[in-house]
Amino acid sequence: MDMDVSRLDETLADRGLDGHLLDADSTTADQRYLSGFDAPDPFLTLYMPDRIAVLVSSMEYERARSESRADVVRRRSAYDYNDLVDTYGSVEGRARAIAAFLEEFDVEAASVNPRFPLITADELRERGIEIDADQSDAVEKTRAVKTETEIAYIREAQRANEAAMAEAERLIAEATVVDGVLHHQGDPLTSERVRRAIERTLLDHDCALDETIVAAGPDAANPHDVGSGPIREDEAIIVDIFPKDKRTQYHADMTRTFLHGTPGEEIDAFHAVTRDAKRAALDAVEPGVSGQQVHDAACTVYEAAGYPTLRTDEGTSRGYIHSTGHGVGLEVHERPRVSRNGETLEPGHVITIEPGLYDPAIGGVRIEDLVVVTEDGYENLTDYHEDLIV
Amino acid sequence: MDMDVSRLDETLADRGLDGHLLDADSTTADQRYLSGFDAPDPFLTLYMPDRIAVLVSSMEYERARSESRADVVRRRSAYDYNDLVDTYGSVEGRARAIAAFLEEFDVEAASVNPRFPLITADELRERGIEIDADQSDAVEKTRAVKTETEIAYIREAQRANEAAMAEAERLIAEATVVDGVLHHQGDPLTSERVRRAIERTLLDHDCALDETIVAAGPDAANPHDVGSGPIREDEAIIVDIFPKDKRTQYHADMTRTFLHGTPGEEIDAFHAVTRDAKRAALDAVEPGVSGQQVHDAACTVYEAAGYPTLRTDEGTSRGYIHSTGHGVGLEVHERPRVSRNGETLEPGHVITIEPGLYDPAIGGVRIEDLVVVTEDGYENLTDYHEDLIV
Repeated sequence: MDMDVSRLDETLADRGLDGHLLDADSTTADQRYLSGFDAPDPFLTLYMPDRIAVLVSSMEYERARSESRADVVRRRSAYDYNDLVDTYGSVEGRARAIAAFLEEFDVEAASVNPRFPLITADELRERGIEIDADQSDAVEKTRAVKTETEIAYIREAQRANEAAMAEAERLIAEATVVDGVLHHQGDPLTSERVRRAIERTLLDHDCALDETIVAAGPDAANPHDVGSGPIREDEAIIVDIFPKDKRTQYHADMTRTFLHGTPGEEIDAFHAVTRDAKRAALDAVEPGVSGQQVHDAACTVYEAAGYPTLRTDEGTSRGYIHSTGHGVGLEVHERPRVSRNGETLEPGHVITIEPGLYDPAIGGVRIEDLVVVTEDGYENLTDYHEDLIV
Repeated sequence: MDMDVSRLDETLADRGLDGHLLDADSTTADQRYLSGFDAPDPFLTLYMPDRIAVLVSSMEYERARSESRADVVRRRSAYDYNDLVDTYGSVEGRARAIAAFLEEFDVEAASVNPRFPLITADELRERGIEIDADQSDAVEKTRAVKTETEIAYIREAQRANEAAMAEAERLIAEATVVDGVLHHQGDPLTSERVRRAIERTLLDHDCALDETIVAAGPDAANPHDVGSGPIREDEAIIVDIFPKDKRTQYHADMTRTFLHGTPGEEIDAFHAVTRDAKRAALDAVEPGVSGQQVHDAACTVYEAAGYPTLRTDEGTSRGYIHSTGHGVGLEVHERPRVSRNGETLEPGHVITIEPGLYDPAIGGVRIEDLVVVTEDGYENLTDYHEDLIV
């Protein structure tokens, strides 16, 4: 997959370690990334500068050989796993098998993710193997830089995302209004119904997702509120969708704010200034710039228009009350951060740019695009209008 | 929720520990169980015999207070979290805040899940706190015994499951046959199409799921094959669905085998003997009996009918090549095990009973129900016919 492993190799060399070890199932992004293997039960991956080895159960052996990106696939029986468990019990038996696996590759000292399982670390340390929690996040920083293949996967998920967003927009736009409440096919159009339509569309594109946000009116004032109940005319509706492609495991992420009817002055202003803030943040995106600088660009626009931001008032509950974005890949939130203390951007980083304005007395607006940092700027992966009124 | 915590309290008392500590997000079943809190980022739960305390971010504080089952909710700022991080860095700063939280409750020694995060354990141990990996699985054994509320949640998920199964059956039954291949609305009926219909139905019932199995003909000979491609007339189709209710997080699990057309003699026999094996396994289910004994009851029926089982031939790839069941709850696979070495069943255990027969030259049949062990036997939570021909 032509990932750039130099950072990981440097970390190992600097610390005199033989490899990086993972004991996790594939819902752990680092594990999925380094092994390329989808598996529901924990297995071992040993990353070494010259090759990657995995240790799996007999049941997963053939599949790991054909599907994983490992150079070497070992099955537990190669280390007499069952005998070891029968003799020493499941915990020590497993540890002895892992120690034998490490010994085969001459690994005496390994780095691990800080959240590596305690029992495996304790047992391996008892066997004289050095286990070193890597606080530098070398693997996460490595996978923050996407290859062309990964960017293609993310584009695919983004296409599904736009289809789902279009379906949400259609329901809102085509709704009839009864007593100020949007209706669809005779029943109130609720956050729940729009969410379900979004999820059906994503399913048809082989995507899964957790909680789509369809937050209307006052619900939209809290960025974490997923929204509930009937949607009304003339209120801003924040729709935030972050699907995962079930085949590739990569995510996309986008937000649009829609309104059926006539916006109040404040929402109109929220929307106009947010478009400006997004444009300013995007204009700042290029390699060598920090996530903090991009976030600052958005804050500057909001502050100039008279809104509080976390920069001017850390405890504010209205105005620009969150950061400008985050990395997207195997996780929906990963490095780099587009926020205070956000790190330097590099080509291949895939990040969201998602400014917004919120006020419990008024509601909220957010507009979010997904972009990939290129050699001299960025490419916007999102192809969707930004109009408020639909 | 009136969970029975005596086992957990005994374990703590036996080992002279002050509490059981979790550092995880709510996708970790033990964390979700003890805290009652759905949260995407890791937080701390401290179980003590007299109360449960949680430590969350400021952002989650209000929600934790209203939604978690904790007696005490602390927010990180109560321990000067931000100052600690600024002074000592994110890892040591977090550890110092957790140590202060433990100190507030006089906890000097705590048990943890064996897969507790290494960095937290290392840091707390450095601060003189004893961290003891609990290899007795006390929490998992506790949550294996379901309360009435949990059983009600599982019933609900099972109702959704049956609706999805009925939709799969309908598509198979109502298919037209063209050149031996089942067709629906003019196009071949594939595993993928049936899977999507199942998922849509589950979505309409607010359930999520991972990979539904719709394995037809030769695909069905491998119990792990999710199935792909067009479904043919006269071949047995194993449909195995295990949804999760998105609101409650509890699972259900069921399997039926359908056939459109006329079964061959072997499949007919597979089906008849599997019904017998399931009946025998169910008859064995009662408190005090072990999961192994229930599994043995199924094996005995298959062996008497002349089929190999793992009991007679551990390496066989045809016949009865898996165990009889597993616990179901917050995880789709949890204790107790209905297999070799399966533990003693207790009232409140919710288990699958899922015998099947497989042969690469013939195909496969499996029938699975979900039952709850009662004071004097069991109650079957599955309400669905077992007919092969639809």
